[in-house]
Amino acid sequence: MGLSPNFFDWLKEKQDLVNRALKAYVPLLEGPASRLFEAMHYSLMSGGKRLRPILVMAGAEAVGGRPEHVLPAACAIECIHTYSLIHDDLPAMDDDDLRRGKPTCHKAFDEATAILAGDGLLTHAFRLLSHEDLAQNFPEVNLLEGIRLVAEAAGLYGMVAGQMADLLAEGRKVSPEELAFIHRHKTAALIRASVLLGAILTGAKPEDKEALSSYGWKIGHAFQIVDDILDLTADEKTLGKPVGSDIRKKKATYPALFGLAASREKAKGLLEEALAALYPFGSRAKALADIAFYVLERKL
Amino acid sequence: MGLSPNFFDWLKEKQDLVNRALKAYVPLLEGPASRLFEAMHYSLMSGGKRLRPILVMAGAEAVGGRPEHVLPAACAIECIHTYSLIHDDLPAMDDDDLRRGKPTCHKAFDEATAILAGDGLLTHAFRLLSHEDLAQNFPEVNLLEGIRLVAEAAGLYGMVAGQMADLLAEGRKVSPEELAFIHRHKTAALIRASVLLGAILTGAKPEDKEALSSYGWKIGHAFQIVDDILDLTADEKTLGKPVGSDIRKKKATYPALFGLAASREKAKGLLEEALAALYPFGSRAKALADIAFYVLERKL
Repeated sequence: MGLSPNFFDWLKEKQDLVNRALKAYVPLLEGPASRLFEAMHYSLMSGGKRLRPILVMAGAEAVGGRPEHVLPAACAIECIHTYSLIHDDLPAMDDDDLRRGKPTCHKAFDEATAILAGDGLLTHAFRLLSHEDLAQNFPEVNLLEGIRLVAEAAGLYGMVAGQMADLLAEGRKVSPEELAFIHRHKTAALIRASVLLGAILTGAKPEDKEALSSYGWKIGHAFQIVDDILDLTADEKTLGKPVGSDIRKKKATYPALFGLAASREKAKGLLEEALAALYPFGSRAKALADIAFYVLERKL
Repeated sequence: MGLSPNFFDWLKEKQDLVNRALKAYVPLLEGPASRLFEAMHYSLMSGGKRLRPILVMAGAEAVGGRPEHVLPAACAIECIHTYSLIHDDLPAMDDDDLRRGKPTCHKAFDEATAILAGDGLLTHAFRLLSHEDLAQNFPEVNLLEGIRLVAEAAGLYGMVAGQMADLLAEGRKVSPEELAFIHRHKTAALIRASVLLGAILTGAKPEDKEALSSYGWKIGHAFQIVDDILDLTADEKTLGKPVGSDIRKKKATYPALFGLAASREKAKGLLEEALAALYPFGSRAKALADIAFYVLERKL
């Protein structure tokens, strides 16, 4: 088993779809606040892999939905992901100058603009999650369930709490439980929510939601472990930022706590568990299976 | 005409109601991220007037709704207002050390925590706007309309754009049109959305929404003008922060452009127009009328 032979064509096609949708769904307004919109688009269109929005579409497909119908929701998730990168890169947070090989938002613009660009993207995500184009294709009750899911996963029960715990863990030895809290909240929660969101909008049955939730947690966790491994083993050019920055910042990582070999084993084990969770969906979950392999095998 | 004789008792009662609801609806979690929740509550419970959440309740009352039913939405608006103050006070933005006579969030905690506390409050606002307690009392379609309204007013079509324009206007002479853009986006949009939100959830008719929208724009605009006047004329103790900070920061204000006397006249005119918009609602809009007087006459 492994990646489907045409996976990278499929991926490119889906990335193009997301990129076009982002340009359509995130305004670029003229006027006294035009700098805000330029900064948002600068970060939004700076070459992300679009993993999370593609997971939204693949989650919809797994339960019989059409990827195009969930595009506003897919864009909302990418807005949230991008806002989190902009704020994490700020001098008061991780203080990073480079992201994907380009100056970070506060370097290309300034700190105030970067803070506002993040705030704007986060707020706009909820405009998109309640979008008329979604309400045209799905029952309102599904949209509301999706909004609740994302607000929890991006906020106090997920990403924001994880980022706080991550910052507080810097420079000291953390317990395996604390590291699990950080990974689960900082990274896995939004990845899990992406898969589930597509399924919830489409009207998934409880057992399907449970299976996709399990898949989402596993690949979310594996994703963070692989990220930590790449920070140690990749070269700066493919990474788009300096290598070894986690060590310099004394970040809590899986390799730091358990070593590289055990980290690779853990990621592989999670991939297998993620694939097992997809069994009930058969060929409908082909995209989700491919994404799991891709997450594990990516060079970045 | 003027304030109802028992207005301040009524106001105190409503403020207490909002304060209790905020404690119930905004979690204060233990664990590795507890500092985040402490910072959020520090700013949330630091003695705000609760004008916006009370407007949500008064907006509901004007169209025959019950104030208690819109409490999660009222709390959501206060979360958004509080997040905006936390981020505006940051060193990269207005760089303020005091707010309501207390150290600002980044002074009491640190910059990273303050950025995350703001992000957390903003995200949680949308968890509250989609809350099951609202769905129990109102049709889902009303909740979605409310979410769209707030996402626009707080984000790219309102507050965030207004804050960007405000920062870009610092230190140079702005045109009356630019000042109007700033006031409308930075302050009036969220105040208007507060009134409308309560009415929309309750199921207001189009003509009622139009009238309340007009009322909201007028008092929102008047509020910002009075704020600018108070920054020049109040004393530090009642203001809770140093007087004249707008001048020192060379902020675009109404008094700076038109003078104090013209500003007072403008605010009075807006009050009269706001009251006129309430005419169709009769006694149901008593609270809204009182709030309009209060906004104009407040010493803070």
